[in-house]
Amino acid sequence: MSFTARQIALAGLLRSCEPPARGAVTDFVSAVGAEVAWRALADGQAPQPVMAATAVRLAGMDRGQLEALAIADLRSAERVGAVIIGPGDPQWPGECFGPLEWVHPYDACPTAAAPLALYARGQGWPRIPRGGLAVVGSRAATPYGVRVTTELAAEAATAGATVVSGAAFGIDAAAHRGALHSADLGDGAGGCRDDAGSIGGAATVAVLACGIDRAYPMAHRALLDAIATQGAVLSEYPPGSVPARHRFLVRNRLIAALAEATVVVEAGRRSGSLNTATTAAGLGRTVLAVPGPVSSAMSVGCHDLLREGRATLVTSWRDVAQMLGPLAPAPAPHHRGDRAVDGLDLIAGRVHDALPTRGVASVDALCVEAALPVGEVLGALAVLQSHGLADRADLGWRRARPAALVDR
Amino acid sequence: MSFTARQIALAGLLRSCEPPARGAVTDFVSAVGAEVAWRALADGQAPQPVMAATAVRLAGMDRGQLEALAIADLRSAERVGAVIIGPGDPQWPGECFGPLEWVHPYDACPTAAAPLALYARGQGWPRIPRGGLAVVGSRAATPYGVRVTTELAAEAATAGATVVSGAAFGIDAAAHRGALHSADLGDGAGGCRDDAGSIGGAATVAVLACGIDRAYPMAHRALLDAIATQGAVLSEYPPGSVPARHRFLVRNRLIAALAEATVVVEAGRRSGSLNTATTAAGLGRTVLAVPGPVSSAMSVGCHDLLREGRATLVTSWRDVAQMLGPLAPAPAPHHRGDRAVDGLDLIAGRVHDALPTRGVASVDALCVEAALPVGEVLGALAVLQSHGLADRADLGWRRARPAALVDR
Repeated sequence: MSFTARQIALAGLLRSCEPPARGAVTDFVSAVGAEVAWRALADGQAPQPVMAATAVRLAGMDRGQLEALAIADLRSAERVGAVIIGPGDPQWPGECFGPLEWVHPYDACPTAAAPLALYARGQGWPRIPRGGLAVVGSRAATPYGVRVTTELAAEAATAGATVVSGAAFGIDAAAHRGALHSADLGDGAGGCRDDAGSIGGAATVAVLACGIDRAYPMAHRALLDAIATQGAVLSEYPPGSVPARHRFLVRNRLIAALAEATVVVEAGRRSGSLNTATTAAGLGRTVLAVPGPVSSAMSVGCHDLLREGRATLVTSWRDVAQMLGPLAPAPAPHHRGDRAVDGLDLIAGRVHDALPTRGVASVDALCVEAALPVGEVLGALAVLQSHGLADRADLGWRRARPAALVDR
Repeated sequence: MSFTARQIALAGLLRSCEPPARGAVTDFVSAVGAEVAWRALADGQAPQPVMAATAVRLAGMDRGQLEALAIADLRSAERVGAVIIGPGDPQWPGECFGPLEWVHPYDACPTAAAPLALYARGQGWPRIPRGGLAVVGSRAATPYGVRVTTELAAEAATAGATVVSGAAFGIDAAAHRGALHSADLGDGAGGCRDDAGSIGGAATVAVLACGIDRAYPMAHRALLDAIATQGAVLSEYPPGSVPARHRFLVRNRLIAALAEATVVVEAGRRSGSLNTATTAAGLGRTVLAVPGPVSSAMSVGCHDLLREGRATLVTSWRDVAQMLGPLAPAPAPHHRGDRAVDGLDLIAGRVHDALPTRGVASVDALCVEAALPVGEVLGALAVLQSHGLADRADLGWRRARPAALVDR
């Protein structure tokens, strides 16, 4: 299979500099388009700051060598079923990357800058950022964190949200698996739900910090295949790129950008997922955190976010949906099982307390017991009767049904 | 033992109406004083609204009968080692109740109104509200909640804070026990720490929703005795009063008022401790909540408070101490003063400067020293008192002394 000039240009651009690309490069590419920009770079004719920013990767190679490199990358991607997409392509999630472009790289947010292109492997395509929920957290998740994550992701996917994460051990894997499990159930939501007319709903999307042709961690090869089958795997790194510490931080900005909200389920005090949360906030996205036992080191990061007002507390998909409003179907109202006496004012409550649980009491006796004048007692009795909490009897009033002492 | 006319008046007033007393009663008592007010009530000579508000409890009895009733209450209290205290008594925590007086009962806050008096049983006396931490929560606490509460209360008491709660099962009991345990350890803090010259630091204070002579719940008789030995047990109900649903809600306002902050450790969705939190917020106190596993029904109320921004998340005493900043005194008094007076306006600052560091000054002397008219001095003193920077003494005003060291 041969590749278009545009595909070759996009692959070449990704090969030309380490993400996030500097402002000179992104400005130039968006000004002249990928193909013109790539030709200029390959011919050594791009503006000096662009040449300088790409010199390390491109220097010493002529146009033919550079094109061969780009085509080799496209072939590597093709072998794992991945394609390259860029700005202007129908599947390009440009609306997600707007905030990344507003912040100049190496300025306020060192990991800003939209990707120049993305390798994408998958069938479904995320409905993002609206409907995208980034679910992130510690690799060293506890059983509690894994359980909460799996349930949250499954419910999110069932409701039609796309679960975005990073395919790492722990919370990431639980998030993808929960979403996939929901899709497997064939509940009409995960995988291909499309009631909003978007390009197609993916249950879950993984963004890698390495080449699209690599499985990292290795143990997640099958998981990544499953994600690609029912959702999408994305990477802005050329095939063959190895994961490196700084790449996780750079990758995190894409996870945050691809979702309307980022929820941190478990995070130690120095977890990288806190970096994702900070980036999400910087992009104007909603940041959410799940609390846990105060004795759990894996909840310390979440509690820090919550205490410092940097995240809103959520305990379930229901809470997330309420935060995200229009994204999610209206949740069913809480079943509170309110007892009728809860809504009473203090006077009526006192009279209700004064009503005997056995037998009847005269109005006079109620006045003494409740320490209220007869007018207020009679008024309260009328209220209680209308609520079905008091009955008039031959010789006075009685409680319509017993109410135990409330908790405190 | 005989009782003073003032003690009989206070007991009579508590007998005259169900707390919270209506505005007519509290206004009358604070205008003419307890003794005059009680005489007027007993003689049927109080203003009509006051007579109306107390008619149900007092009607049909002459002065002799009413006094006998009050004396009987005092005797009942005496049998369990309790005394009655009221406004103006040195142990009266009037500064705590200010916010209750600003809100008219049956108005914005149906459980407002300062108590007319309190039965108090105990040796130590709380250093409140500065240094008071209300620790409340569900009766049906989980082992997690009990463990967290016990540790939090023990650390709070060790740091010199007074743990205020309601002696109920569950979180309440764990709070009292944690504080008592700290005192038992003889770590030089709980129980009677008094390095700041305050009236006496109690490790823990229980406020009851029944008469001071009753143990409720029954199983907590020994716990209440221990609290009385190392702290204080308080009640605004006449001896013999039974706990009733509405009394728990009314009592909760005193728990909230007696503390600078209220922390909810575990609470179901309908827990009464949420009512204490709401009251605390209404009184301008700090509201804190401890998170827990999202799968625990006993943390739902805490998570609701946190999600709705009605409480700040805390995981330990360290977090609480950081929230309560000014509670925690700096090592050097002048440092604390410098920091605390920073936010004062010019007038309050001048009055603060005029306050003597030793001894007391009359308002007249302060007017001369600060070169301000009496109205402005009184206003400034109220501000300073509310900031914990000035204390009213028998013969005038003094600069507030630094409270105990707090672990930060």
